[in-house]
Amino acid sequence: VAALSQGGHDALVCALPANVLLLTGYWPVIGSAIALVTKDARVALVAPADERDLAEGGWADDLHTFEPGSLAELREARTAAATPLATVLREAGLSSGSARIAFEGGAAMEPSSYVSLHVYGGAMRTLLEDALPRAQLVDGSELIARLRAVKTRREVECIARSCAVAERAFRAGAGHVVANSSEREIAAAFAAGLEAAARGEERSGGFVFCMSGPNAAKAGRAYARSRARAMAQGEVALVHCNSHLGGYWTDITRCYCAGAPGAPAADMYDAVLEARAAALDALRPGARARDVDRAGRAVLERRGYGSAFTHGTGHGVGFAAIDHNAIPRVHPASPDILEPGMVFNIEPGIYLDGVTGIRHCDVVALGEHGIRVLTAFHDSVGELAIG
Amino acid sequence: VAALSQGGHDALVCALPANVLLLTGYWPVIGSAIALVTKDARVALVAPADERDLAEGGWADDLHTFEPGSLAELREARTAAATPLATVLREAGLSSGSARIAFEGGAAMEPSSYVSLHVYGGAMRTLLEDALPRAQLVDGSELIARLRAVKTRREVECIARSCAVAERAFRAGAGHVVANSSEREIAAAFAAGLEAAARGEERSGGFVFCMSGPNAAKAGRAYARSRARAMAQGEVALVHCNSHLGGYWTDITRCYCAGAPGAPAADMYDAVLEARAAALDALRPGARARDVDRAGRAVLERRGYGSAFTHGTGHGVGFAAIDHNAIPRVHPASPDILEPGMVFNIEPGIYLDGVTGIRHCDVVALGEHGIRVLTAFHDSVGELAIG
Repeated sequence: VAALSQGGHDALVCALPANVLLLTGYWPVIGSAIALVTKDARVALVAPADERDLAEGGWADDLHTFEPGSLAELREARTAAATPLATVLREAGLSSGSARIAFEGGAAMEPSSYVSLHVYGGAMRTLLEDALPRAQLVDGSELIARLRAVKTRREVECIARSCAVAERAFRAGAGHVVANSSEREIAAAFAAGLEAAARGEERSGGFVFCMSGPNAAKAGRAYARSRARAMAQGEVALVHCNSHLGGYWTDITRCYCAGAPGAPAADMYDAVLEARAAALDALRPGARARDVDRAGRAVLERRGYGSAFTHGTGHGVGFAAIDHNAIPRVHPASPDILEPGMVFNIEPGIYLDGVTGIRHCDVVALGEHGIRVLTAFHDSVGELAIG
Repeated sequence: VAALSQGGHDALVCALPANVLLLTGYWPVIGSAIALVTKDARVALVAPADERDLAEGGWADDLHTFEPGSLAELREARTAAATPLATVLREAGLSSGSARIAFEGGAAMEPSSYVSLHVYGGAMRTLLEDALPRAQLVDGSELIARLRAVKTRREVECIARSCAVAERAFRAGAGHVVANSSEREIAAAFAAGLEAAARGEERSGGFVFCMSGPNAAKAGRAYARSRARAMAQGEVALVHCNSHLGGYWTDITRCYCAGAPGAPAADMYDAVLEARAAALDALRPGARARDVDRAGRAVLERRGYGSAFTHGTGHGVGFAAIDHNAIPRVHPASPDILEPGMVFNIEPGIYLDGVTGIRHCDVVALGEHGIRVLTAFHDSVGELAIG
C-alpha cells in the first residue's frame, strides 16, 4: 500500500499467478484470476468459479467468481472475467475520474503452476480500457518487482517450508548418484523423492534436472536439461531443482560425485564452497548486492576460475523460480541494496567446457540480524561424495 | 502463408513457445525466442544464444541469437532481443512503409514447457512499435488459432509419437491402481512410467493427476488435482495425463477401477463408452463439430446423464495441452467444421457430485478418409477394471 501511494497509483491490477499470490495469498491454478489492490488497502479478487475453494483460502476482502465457459456459449476467460472485473473496479471507486492504475504491462518470467498457463498478454490492457475508459494505465512492472523482493514473515516461512520439502528429496535422492545411472534416471529418482516428501501437502510440485560429467559444464546456461548420458565413477552429477509448495518456489543445486572427486573436480569443489562461504559472509542488511557478488567472485578469480563463473552470484527467489532479474540481483552491475526480508539464492559456479561444472546453489533469507540458510544440507565435499 | 495473404498481413510475429514451434519447428525452452513469417514464406528466428543448438533443429531460414544477460550489464530478454528483432524485421523488408503485422495481441493458454515461462505480454507491442514505427499492428490471435488447428502430416506424426509414449506409461501404471493406494501415489506411479517411457527421447515431460472415488466427480472442473485420499476396493481412479514429446502435447484420461465397478459406476462406464463410440462414429471431414458433440451428448441424455456431462465433447490438442477454445471446438455452440489434419480430443464424461466421475478422453486425428485414434488402448470396462 505504501508502495502504491509512493508511485501515485490508485490501484494495482495483477493476473500472473505469482503476483496474485503476492497480493491475495491465493495461488491461481490456471492463470485467469485477477487481483486488485487499492491504495486504501482493499484487496479484491476475480477468480474462475472452479477455483473458489482455493481463492477463499487467501485474504481478499471481496471475491467475485466467473464461469469460464458454459454449454450455451463458447467464450474465453477474458470475456467471462470482463463483467466481474468491471464490478470490482467500480466498487473500488475507480470508475469515476481518471484513476491511475498500475498493471502488468511488461514482460515476466512466470513459474509453471499447472499443465498450461493462461496469460492475458495484451488483452489485459484492453480489458482495463474497456472497464475504465478514463483511467490512466501505467506499467506496474517495477512496482511489482519491488513488492516481490521483500518478503513478509509469513512468506519467508512458506519458502522455508518449501525448501524443507526439497531438502528431504535431496537427502533421499543422493544415494541414487551411482556410476552407470543415466542423468534421466538420477533426475527421476530425485523427482520421485520430491513427490514423496510433499505427499502430505495440498499443492506441490517441481522440476529436477541432472547433468553429469562434461554435461555439467552446460549448467551455466539459462536452462537445465537431463540427458540419456550414463555417469562414470568419479564423475560429477549436477542436480538442479526448482520445486514449489503452494506457489513458493525453491532454487537449489547440489553437485554429487560418484565416489571421490578426481583432480580438477576436487579443486573446483573447494573453490566453489570457498566462494559460497565468502558470499554468505558478506550478507547483511544495507550491504550492496554487487559487493556480495564481488566477495564470492574474488575467490574464484584468485583461484583461477574467474572466467568460468559466467553468471551472477544470485537473484531473488520465492515468487520466482528462475528469474535473473528478480530483486535482489546479486550481480556485478546490480544497484540493489540488501534489506531484511529479502530471499534469494547464492549460486557460485565453475563451468569448464569439456571438463565438468560445479555449482552450489542455496536459498537464503536475510533477517534483521543475520542470515538464515534455508537449504543448509549437503554443503561439504564429504557429504557430496557418494559411496 | 496463404492464411497470411488472405488476412492481408505482411507478416506474423510470435513468441509464445507453442507458436514458435508452429512456425519454425523449434520449441523454445524459456519463451524469449521470437519467430517471424512473412507472406513470401520466409521464416526468421530470434533466439537466445543458449538455445542455438535447439533452434538450429528447426526450419527457420535465418537465425539471429542474442545474449539474454552478461556480467557487464543487467538486462531483460526484451532489451536483449530488441536489436536482432529489428534486424530481422528490416531484412524482411518490413521497416519501410506501413507493413501490416499480426502478432500475439490477445490472451492465450500456453503449455508449461519448463520451470518458468518468459512471457513478453504487453512488451511485445512496444518492441514492435519501437522497431517499426510506421507499421500497423493487428491482433493475430484468430489467424494463429486457425494455423494451429489443421496439422501437417509431420505434426500429426509428432503428436502420435507423443501419444505412444503416454500409452506406455498408462499400460505400466494401470497395475498400480489398487485399494489403499493414495491418489498421489497412483499419479506418481503413472508419472514415473511416463518418465521411463520417454527415457530415450530428447525432450519430454508432463503431468499426471489421479482423482478417486467421489473426488473423481470434481474432474469436470477446469483443472485436475491429486490428493492424499486413499482409494477403496471397487472405487474409480480417474487418471488424467497431459504429456509432451518435443512440444507436442497429449490429453488423455482413463478411469480405472480397483476390481469390478459397483452399481452406479458400471452403468456410467457403459454410458460413457457408448457416448465415445457415437462421437467417434460421427467424425468425418465436413462434419459440423457441434453435431459430433450432439452425437455423444444424445447418448448421455438418453441414459439419464445429460446434466452430468458439464463440458464440451472435445477441443483441439497438440500445440495446446488444455485449451477449450482450441479449434476444433467439439461443443454445442461450436461454429467449426471438421477438416482433414485436425487433431482433437473426444472426452465424454459423467460427473455425479458425491458419487464419482467417469471420463474417457482420447486423442484422434482426422484424415481424408477416416479417423485415427492416437490413444487406442484401455478402452473397455474389461481392461479398465484392474485386478
